[in-house]
Amino acid sequence: MGAGPVSVAASGASPAHRAPIPIVEVDHAARAAARAHQEQLVKPRGALGRLEDLAVWMAGVSGNPRPAVRVRIVVAAADHGVVAEGVSAYPSAVTGQMLATFLSGGAAIAVLARAVDADLVLVDAGVDADTSTLDLVRTGLRPSRNLAREPALDVAQVALGVDCGRELARQAAADGITVLVGGEMGIGNTTPATCLAATLTGRAPVVGPGTGLDDAGLARKRAAVDRALALHGPHIDGPLGALRRVGGGEIAVLCGLALGAGEHGLGYVCDGLIATAGAAVAAAIEPGLRPRLLAGHRSAEPAHDVLLEHLGLEPVLDLAMRLGEGSGAAAAIAILRLACALHAGMATFAQAGVSDHE
Amino acid sequence: MGAGPVSVAASGASPAHRAPIPIVEVDHAARAAARAHQEQLVKPRGALGRLEDLAVWMAGVSGNPRPAVRVRIVVAAADHGVVAEGVSAYPSAVTGQMLATFLSGGAAIAVLARAVDADLVLVDAGVDADTSTLDLVRTGLRPSRNLAREPALDVAQVALGVDCGRELARQAAADGITVLVGGEMGIGNTTPATCLAATLTGRAPVVGPGTGLDDAGLARKRAAVDRALALHGPHIDGPLGALRRVGGGEIAVLCGLALGAGEHGLGYVCDGLIATAGAAVAAAIEPGLRPRLLAGHRSAEPAHDVLLEHLGLEPVLDLAMRLGEGSGAAAAIAILRLACALHAGMATFAQAGVSDHE
Repeated sequence: MGAGPVSVAASGASPAHRAPIPIVEVDHAARAAARAHQEQLVKPRGALGRLEDLAVWMAGVSGNPRPAVRVRIVVAAADHGVVAEGVSAYPSAVTGQMLATFLSGGAAIAVLARAVDADLVLVDAGVDADTSTLDLVRTGLRPSRNLAREPALDVAQVALGVDCGRELARQAAADGITVLVGGEMGIGNTTPATCLAATLTGRAPVVGPGTGLDDAGLARKRAAVDRALALHGPHIDGPLGALRRVGGGEIAVLCGLALGAGEHGLGYVCDGLIATAGAAVAAAIEPGLRPRLLAGHRSAEPAHDVLLEHLGLEPVLDLAMRLGEGSGAAAAIAILRLACALHAGMATFAQAGVSDHE
Repeated sequence: MGAGPVSVAASGASPAHRAPIPIVEVDHAARAAARAHQEQLVKPRGALGRLEDLAVWMAGVSGNPRPAVRVRIVVAAADHGVVAEGVSAYPSAVTGQMLATFLSGGAAIAVLARAVDADLVLVDAGVDADTSTLDLVRTGLRPSRNLAREPALDVAQVALGVDCGRELARQAAADGITVLVGGEMGIGNTTPATCLAATLTGRAPVVGPGTGLDDAGLARKRAAVDRALALHGPHIDGPLGALRRVGGGEIAVLCGLALGAGEHGLGYVCDGLIATAGAAVAAAIEPGLRPRLLAGHRSAEPAHDVLLEHLGLEPVLDLAMRLGEGSGAAAAIAILRLACALHAGMATFAQAGVSDHE
């Protein structure tokens, strides 16, 4: 764990997310300087492909033509009332059990955080287990209610989750972080994310197997999604309304984390379906956030594609991962680091004494 | 540079590549043990997607259920007579100039080798410049002749190149390396690689812009490829014959390097069009080599796709890179390392005390 426990005093009394959130514009001068530097490096123009774009993106979001990649992974965990509909292959107890595994270092995201030299911060965004002995961020959020029958959250819970995410981004910026990764853990949470993807894009829901549903489970999940969209669809008033009716605690925190990345001038790397749903809600609230978002990977969970297309994001990796936890985005950090190492470490044509072709 | 200069005494008198080359079969027991271990790790079955497959591949090629990733990148450089046809955007002098940049650490592959903790070995496979002061492997190969007019190499040069590559693989195995990356540098070398791709697959040539040809250059390159295939096509007798007539020195060395990886029980990561052409010649000579090959990335150079499909290889990365030098394969090493770190570092369900769903 690169960062200790974080105290988050969410301002529940002032739902600040209802007022416009000032998003720091990407630094166009830093971007242009980074692009110009790339064109001097000893390689044919554009020959490093996406690696050049990643270094330029990093320059823009961090305001530094020679950007430093300092990463914090925030994993928000929550439970979901909709599991009562039989929409997950695992019991809700796994959410709480996994928290201990994140902290002991044996979970995938813990291994990846070490491997890519990133901080890891864990948030209880409404876990249905006693987490009082664990070293994590507490939010006061409770597990969501069954969105197939009633709204998942209430207004205060949405505000609490979003404010918590924004505060975590503020603290990250204060600690010198330049890139945030949002990850999540929550048995049942591909169901709210699938509902959000359909709601935000206006497209028919694309229901996938999540952690590994069989055909009967998939039919139950499809029925729950259809029921939720029929129940809430006519009443959804904007992105925060969608988050309240068909979202969840961890998605609210990740929405706030992405917004906070925008407020505090950080880059934000989206993981899979659930984390990208949080970012999509954030981008619906503040469209100016979009240039600060990077898609770490393309998940095997099919609704993820719908959101990536909606956001206009091209993923860095496509490795058929579908774990969540921030794992796909964390893997992409390895590539982002290579991109910035090349940007900083390569010689120019002039330095190398190599003939340019122009 | 992780490895010093290597002395290669190629056995020019005995063209050993004409006899069958004994390829070490992949270790199926180690593969099965690695797969079984993956299924115990604290994640839904298969949720790490390609990262699981990479760890299992590494187990199979290294014969170790808990594989270690110890990497050497071999960059073979050569010049090509076919540049007389105007097929490259850069002059041949750049090949020699780049050798010094590899050694001084300012080239992309030098930066990447440091970033992914790999050895870097440089081979003069027929560079048209004085390399006598440089710290590299000498082969005695000369620049190729103009393949649009005559065979690129002769029988002895092919044997010399292939034997050199095999010897470098033998030395790597002796040094404890488990994975080889083949890279190349050679102004004009997408032209022979494009000819080889067409010859090996029996498909029409797919001619791309290489380092950045304009339309007129592309037309000249297409004409040179067509002329070469018309001239040599009727006379090509097998993969080594193709290498002789439309290959090049660095492609011969990389063919031998891939064969040597098979002989000495290593994994071999293919880079872009030119390196994959070398591996494809090797796999045509010894089809048993195929399970030891991994495609590091999909190059933007279009003929690369033809070879990947021919070899049945699915690339790890797709980042629109087209630099060569081994750069795409080196970037994929970062992902291979993550895969093996997860394989070694994650807790099992039993260790973590997490409920499995079965």
